[in-house]
Amino acid sequence: MSHPGDPILLHDLDRAGILRLTLNDVPRRNALSEEMLEALATALAQAGTDPAVRVIVLAAMGPAFCAGHDLKQLTAARDAPDGGRAYFARIMALCSGVMQAILACPRPVIAEVTGVATAAGCQLVASCDLAIAADDARFSTPGVHIGLFCSTPMVALSRNVAPKHAMEMLLTGDMTSAARAAEIGLINRAVPPADLRGAVMEMAARIASKSGMTLAVGKRAFYEQREMPLAQAYDHASQVMVRNMLARDAQEGIGAFIEKRAPEWQDC
Amino acid sequence: MSHPGDPILLHDLDRAGILRLTLNDVPRRNALSEEMLEALATALAQAGTDPAVRVIVLAAMGPAFCAGHDLKQLTAARDAPDGGRAYFARIMALCSGVMQAILACPRPVIAEVTGVATAAGCQLVASCDLAIAADDARFSTPGVHIGLFCSTPMVALSRNVAPKHAMEMLLTGDMTSAARAAEIGLINRAVPPADLRGAVMEMAARIASKSGMTLAVGKRAFYEQREMPLAQAYDHASQVMVRNMLARDAQEGIGAFIEKRAPEWQDC
Amino acid sequence: MSHPGDPILLHDLDRAGILRLTLNDVPRRNALSEEMLEALATALAQAGTDPAVRVIVLAAMGPAFCAGHDLKQLTAARDAPDGGRAYFARIMALCSGVMQAILACPRPVIAEVTGVATAAGCQLVASCDLAIAADDARFSTPGVHIGLFCSTPMVALSRNVAPKHAMEMLLTGDMTSAARAAEIGLINRAVPPADLRGAVMEMAARIASKSGMTLAVGKRAFYEQREMPLAQAYDHASQVMVRNMLARDAQEGIGAFIEKRAPEWQDC
Repeated sequence: MSHPGDPILLHDLDRAGILRLTLNDVPRRNALSEEMLEALATALAQAGTDPAVRVIVLAAMGPAFCAGHDLKQLTAARDAPDGGRAYFARIMALCSGVMQAILACPRPVIAEVTGVATAAGCQLVASCDLAIAADDARFSTPGVHIGLFCSTPMVALSRNVAPKHAMEMLLTGDMTSAARAAEIGLINRAVPPADLRGAVMEMAARIASKSGMTLAVGKRAFYEQREMPLAQAYDHASQVMVRNMLARDAQEGIGAFIEKRAPEWQDC
Repeated sequence: MSHPGDPILLHDLDRAGILRLTLNDVPRRNALSEEMLEALATALAQAGTDPAVRVIVLAAMGPAFCAGHDLKQLTAARDAPDGGRAYFARIMALCSGVMQAILACPRPVIAEVTGVATAAGCQLVASCDLAIAADDARFSTPGVHIGLFCSTPMVALSRNVAPKHAMEMLLTGDMTSAARAAEIGLINRAVPPADLRGAVMEMAARIASKSGMTLAVGKRAFYEQREMPLAQAYDHASQVMVRNMLARDAQEGIGAFIEKRAPEWQDC
Repeated sequence: MSHPGDPILLHDLDRAGILRLTLNDVPRRNALSEEMLEALATALAQAGTDPAVRVIVLAAMGPAFCAGHDLKQLTAARDAPDGGRAYFARIMALCSGVMQAILACPRPVIAEVTGVATAAGCQLVASCDLAIAADDARFSTPGVHIGLFCSTPMVALSRNVAPKHAMEMLLTGDMTSAARAAEIGLINRAVPPADLRGAVMEMAARIASKSGMTLAVGKRAFYEQREMPLAQAYDHASQVMVRNMLARDAQEGIGAFIEKRAPEWQDC
């Protein structure tokens, strides 16, 4: 339950190192207001350097996972002498920065999607490393309904799903069911609402049990190599592998595997 | 019905702004002959500047949606002193130009696929922004059967479906069913033949009801950002969003949304 | 059946031009040891220049298709003065070279997957042009279990499946069933174990009946154009098509098609 005076982004770090960040601005349908974007940017930056955090879960309170940009806040900025241009640019840079901070964060980030994820809210799901949704969750990029194409959401969307699937969402603005989102690759899978938190926390716990160094090295290399031509990607990944082999946790992990015992990570 | 003397590309623009372009060279199975390619190039160029056109549907008469290049026409060119080289180059440039003109056209283009779409005909479907097919439609890139690999079709195909799916079509030349084409992302979905036109026109009407400015801005940005590294894509899309926010139709659309009324677009 | 003293990579070329390369190091679960990588590199290089070879099938003996790198061999190298750095770099370069040699080989390569394909073994499947698996086969990139992220396997994996699917395999290390591998595009399809060899050999025979020149031209262009921006990809593929049109086998194939007779390839 959310209470008046609660912060708009709740933090809850458990003993397994799973940090739950919960969007908690129910009256604004968890819109990515300036305040929410700043709270997310700060939380991601802190989580990336806090050794106690091993995995991040991004969840939400209320019937909307996230409704995208705060249209009232953006509209209010139109009264400025420049018609809002500078404010819009600031918000777009802040929002794109948060999305890229998810990829740059050394901890894996899992979206736990309940309700509707629309516009930049859909982009938030697309930007997470992994996503599991309640099977009554829904997704859309509805900017065309209000004259504002979901151009920044499509950067993330088009890197997750096939072009015709992305274009259908973008050009029609129609809702996509969780089952369909799983089919097209926008989320990993959909589960009954009652099972959602358990499924996400089980996946998070499994990942949290790995070497944090290994996860950080691999996640970083994933997004780096993805933008390279094949030969360069192999050169880069090969160098990453060699350094990883020489790290303490690989020595321990491989030794434990050969000796058929459980490894003990030191995250280095 | 098609009649002798009818043009090989039929134009039909309705009051909703939906332009149906219908391939109508049934005797040649709607092959992409020089004449057909020129007719398509002209029609796309005109549609892109005609404010009355809001959405384009690409349909076909007869049992073949499109059979690809006109092999008899290409073969006739072998009698030239250069063995056909200059003519082949001209046709390939013309054909690749038409495919790219679909992406560059500011209006969304929906393929309405009946019958078989083969070789450059399959490429035509892959090149459209959206595609719905009759569930008895079929797709193939059968160039390997005749010693001529479908190298230009694969440019579009490999940007729509996963590499193993593309390679299976390209290396075997086998037919892919509409249901399978939907699974792999080559089309958005397959419907019973009797429902096809209704499904396409309903989707076209929904898109035609949006701001033409917004659709044009978004479609252009989609194909631009797709070729950029992530950070550059976000910078570009953010600039597009700021300009879109300042446009009249976004102001109208967002205002209408906040005031819970229907927007009135002026396409600017 | 495998016998002591048999080579670790079996070669079997049939009269249709189908070369079966069978991983045959059952005691080491067909690990990509230095010897296995060298055997694969040599076999691929030879197959690429041997006109008798038209298609390559990559199969395996025993319960593991391929278990990835040989961890005991890698671990033994830690005793070197440099802690193994030079040896690790040599193995990574050799392994990445084999994976890229599959793509560079002018013959189509089909993986026939039985048992488990893990780490670089999963990468081997992802690197083949086509893959059919027994429906009890399984796939994983389990490096996170031993502190060594599957960074080089992910180069191939992330170019075959959607990012959330790749990340789930990479971050959890969990096994993926053959049915799921088919859904996400890692393999073309899964068949009952008793039907596997027949399905692969039938596909191989169908491809082997095509012009070898055409297959080589098309396969090469596929991987080249995939790394280019769209306009450059079309320019390149158009030039490939023109040269292909002027080749003897295209003249023969198109002529045979128009005359409704079977073509006779000369692979040139």
